[in-house]
Amino acid sequence: MSVVMLEQYREKIRTELDSVVNFWLTYSHDTKYGGFFTCIDKDGHIYDDLKYVWLQGRQVWMYCRLYRTMERFHKEEILQAAKAGGEFLRQFARVPSNSHSWKCAFCLTKDGKTVKIQRSIFSECFYIMAMDELSRVTGDKDMQAEAEQMMDHVIHWVRVDPSELGRPKLPGDEPINSMAVPMMLLCLVQQLTEERDNDLVEKYRETGQWCVKKILQHIQRGGMAILENVSLEGAELNGCQGRLQNPGHALEAGWFLLQYCGKHGDESLQLTAINKFIELQFQRGWDKEHGGLFYFLDVDGHCPTQLEWSMKLWWPHCEALIALLMAYNNTKKPTLLDRFSEVYEYTFSHFSDPENGEWFGYLTQEGKVAMDFKGGPFKGFFHVPRCLYMCERILDGLLGDIN
Amino acid sequence: MSVVMLEQYREKIRTELDSVVNFWLTYSHDTKYGGFFTCIDKDGHIYDDLKYVWLQGRQVWMYCRLYRTMERFHKEEILQAAKAGGEFLRQFARVPSNSHSWKCAFCLTKDGKTVKIQRSIFSECFYIMAMDELSRVTGDKDMQAEAEQMMDHVIHWVRVDPSELGRPKLPGDEPINSMAVPMMLLCLVQQLTEERDNDLVEKYRETGQWCVKKILQHIQRGGMAILENVSLEGAELNGCQGRLQNPGHALEAGWFLLQYCGKHGDESLQLTAINKFIELQFQRGWDKEHGGLFYFLDVDGHCPTQLEWSMKLWWPHCEALIALLMAYNNTKKPTLLDRFSEVYEYTFSHFSDPENGEWFGYLTQEGKVAMDFKGGPFKGFFHVPRCLYMCERILDGLLGDIN
Repeated sequence: MSVVMLEQYREKIRTELDSVVNFWLTYSHDTKYGGFFTCIDKDGHIYDDLKYVWLQGRQVWMYCRLYRTMERFHKEEILQAAKAGGEFLRQFARVPSNSHSWKCAFCLTKDGKTVKIQRSIFSECFYIMAMDELSRVTGDKDMQAEAEQMMDHVIHWVRVDPSELGRPKLPGDEPINSMAVPMMLLCLVQQLTEERDNDLVEKYRETGQWCVKKILQHIQRGGMAILENVSLEGAELNGCQGRLQNPGHALEAGWFLLQYCGKHGDESLQLTAINKFIELQFQRGWDKEHGGLFYFLDVDGHCPTQLEWSMKLWWPHCEALIALLMAYNNTKKPTLLDRFSEVYEYTFSHFSDPENGEWFGYLTQEGKVAMDFKGGPFKGFFHVPRCLYMCERILDGLLGDIN
Repeated sequence: MSVVMLEQYREKIRTELDSVVNFWLTYSHDTKYGGFFTCIDKDGHIYDDLKYVWLQGRQVWMYCRLYRTMERFHKEEILQAAKAGGEFLRQFARVPSNSHSWKCAFCLTKDGKTVKIQRSIFSECFYIMAMDELSRVTGDKDMQAEAEQMMDHVIHWVRVDPSELGRPKLPGDEPINSMAVPMMLLCLVQQLTEERDNDLVEKYRETGQWCVKKILQHIQRGGMAILENVSLEGAELNGCQGRLQNPGHALEAGWFLLQYCGKHGDESLQLTAINKFIELQFQRGWDKEHGGLFYFLDVDGHCPTQLEWSMKLWWPHCEALIALLMAYNNTKKPTLLDRFSEVYEYTFSHFSDPENGEWFGYLTQEGKVAMDFKGGPFKGFFHVPRCLYMCERILDGLLGDIN
C-alpha cells in the first residue's frame, strides 16, 4: 500500500467528515425546543420529531469531541449546538425513579415529555458520555461530577444490583453476560479518565479490568468464535441466544480493547484483540458473495431469528474501518490494511450518498438501499462521524510517521 | 373463474393443510415437558427450545378447532396433543401478579420457567382462545369459566384501567387506539360466544360493538387509507406512528368484520369491510414490481423505520387469502376472486416448501427466502393452518352452492 493511497484515503475521509458535520448542523437542530431531530430523510426533511436520548447524548458528545480536538471544528456554531443539546438533556432526559438514583428516558417528545423508559443502562450511558465531554469544553465541574455520579449508579446496576432498572426477576431469565454491557462500560471508563487526574484513573481502574475480563469471556469454541451472549461465568449459553454472533459489535469491542492496551501496554491483550475480535470476526462476518458485513450470524450456521440478520448496516462497517485501521497502525501488518481497503471500498460505494450527503444506514444483503433515510430512531450523528474522525486521526498519525 | 379452478384450489389447499398438520404433529411436540417446540428449522430440526406462550395457545386452539370441526382431523392424536398443550399452558403460562388478576408470561423455558412477561394483553388473549376452544372439545366447564374470567380481566385492562399491565404512565405517552387491540378483542368475543347460549352472547354484545367502532376509527384520510394507530378519539396521530400502514393487519381486520356481519347482518358494515379494509388495503399493500404484500408502509410515502418494512411475510398473505375469498363468497364480485388468485399464485409459489413441507415465513422484497426456518419465536402452528382451514371451508361452501 502506497503513501499516496493513504493520503487519498485521508483526503476522502476528511472531506466526508466535513460534509457529514454540515448535514447535521444544517438539518438536525431544533431551534424552538432545543435538542436534535434525528429522523431525517434522504434530503434533510424531518419526518418525525421524537427525540431519542441515546442519539441526543451521542450528538452532544460528538460535537464536543470535534470542537475540542480538531482545529477546523473549533467553531462557535458547534459549541453552541453542543451546549443547547446538553441543556435539553439535563432538563428533560432524567426522569425521577422510585429510588435515590435517576433513570434516563429512552424517548422524548420534541418538547421534552417522556415517551418511553427502557429498563436497561444505555440511555444513562450516553448521558454520561455527553456530560463528561461537554464538561471538558465548558470547564463545568458540576457537570463532570454529575457524569461521575451517574456512572456510579450504572456500575452499581451492572455489578451489584440491577433491581432499580425495574425488570422483574424471573426464574427462567438467568442474568447473562451480554457483550454490549462490558463494552459500553469500558468505553465510559476511558471517556471519564482520559487526561483526568490520577485519583479518577485509580477510582475506575478495577472497573476497567473487570470490563476487559468480561469482554474476553466472549471468546468461545476454543478461540474460534466470538459469541454475543455468554453466562456470567463465561460459559456458552443454550439456544439461539447462545449461538448469536454480531460481527460489528465484536469489531467495535476489538478497537475498544486496542485503545485500552494503548493506555495499559498489555501486548498479549493487544494480540487477542487483533486476532480474535478483529481478524477472526471480520473473516466470519464478511459476506463473500455480496460483500459487506452481516448484522447477525449463528455460529452453527442456523438462520438467526432476527429479521435483519442478512442486512448490511452502516455501523458495523464504521466499526470495521476503525478496528482494521487501528490494528494496522499498531502492527503494520499489510493484510490488515488490505482488509481496511476492502471495507472502505464497499462502504463508500454503498452507504455514502454523494447526491444529498450523509450515509444511508440500511442495505439489503445484495447491497441495495433498503431504507433511504439518513437518520432514524437508531441512526444519529455518531457512528459515521466517529468513524471518519477516528480514521482521519489514525491516518494523520500514520502519515506523520512516514513523512 | 371456472368451477374446475375452484376445485383445483380446494384440492391443493386441502392437501397442503394435511401436510402442514403432519409437519407439526411430527416435529413440534415436547413429549418430555409438554407443550410445543416452535423453533423448527427447514427440515424439522429443533434449533431452540424456548416456548412462546402466544404460539402455545394458538397451537392448542388450532388443534382443537380442526378436531372439532373437520371430520378428517377428528383423531385421538390431535386431541391428546391439544390437551397436553393446554395442560402445559395452565400449569406454567399464568404467573402471579401483584394484583388480584393473573398475567400470562410471553416466553417460558422448555420446562415452564418464566423467561419474559410482556406488559401487553396478547399472551392472555391467546391463552383465552386456547382455553375456550379446548373446553369445547373436552366439555370442561371450569376451563370455559377460566377463559371467560381472563377475558373479563383483558376487557378491564383495555377499556377501564391498564395499570395492572405494569407500564408506567408517562406524560409523553398518550394512550392510543392501536388496531391490534380491538381486532384481538373482536376475535375473542366471536370465539367465546360462538354457539354459546344467549346470556353469554348478551354479556359480550356491547364489547363487540365497541371493537367494531374502534376498528372503524382506523379509516382515515377521507376514507382513502387504513392507518394502524389513531388517537382514542379516532384522529390521525403525529409522526411515523400515525402514518403507519400494516396491510396484513387491515386485511385480517376486514375478515373479522365480515364474520361479525355474518352474525349481525349489517350490510353497510359489510360494504365498508370489503371496500376499505380489503380492496383498498390490498391495492395499497401489494408490491406492483415484485409481487407480494409489503409488511409496513407509510401513508405519505416516507420510508418506514421498521427494518422489515419491505419484506414479504407469510402471515399477511394468509390473511389476504382468507379476506379475499370471504369477500368473494359474500359478494360474488369477480375482481375479488381475481385478487385471490393473484395472492394464491404468489403464496404457493414463494412460501410453500414442497421439499420439506410447511411454509417459509420471511422473504426479501424480491421474493427470495430470507429466513429458512419453518417455525420461530413468532411463527407457529397458526396463520398457515388457519388460512388453509378457512379457505377450504369457504370453498366447500362455494362449491356446494354451485353443485
